Amino acid sequence: MKNEAKFYHAGCPVCIDAETMILETIDKDRFEIEVIHLGDQPERISEAESKGIKSVPALSVGLSVFHINFGASIEDLKG
Amino acid sequence: MKNEAKFYHAGCPVCIDAETMILETIDKDRFEIEVIHLGDQPERISEAESKGIKSVPALSVGLSVFHINFGASIEDLKG
Repeated sequence: MKNEAKFYHAGCPVCIDAETMILETIDKDRFEIEVIHLGDQPERISEAESKGIKSVPALSVGLSVFHINFGASIEDLKG
Repeated sequence: MKNEAKFYHAGCPVCIDAETMILETIDKDRFEIEVIHLGDQPERISEAESKGIKSVPALSVGLSVFHINFGASIEDLKG
């Protein structure tokens, strides 16, 4: 069974660069990666927050969250 | 031939978490990853700066740099 990784972003240029890097480098034989655009799917903002995500782009793997560079804060996505 | 990825850190707890994530998730069939501890190898700080690294932990892949979370600024490592 593959491990689950979730990449949260909001479509900003910083996010796209990070997404490209993640999709290029991650071991797809071992990880199933889901890409979630919080601008298009605002109903998933609370899920992101519950994982400890404070800004996007961010990668969630297991119980860990890694904020990559800085695109936008979660607060700013709540509109 | 494998692509080259370089992970720069300074031994801080944030760095170790990020290193664990990178080493766990990266596709080792396609990427050769080098881990550089800038506290132990201060002579490589200028190399890191020339790649555009502003803080550690950071991952350099090809021409791109990704700053992950925030451990320490490069300026603070110059001692």
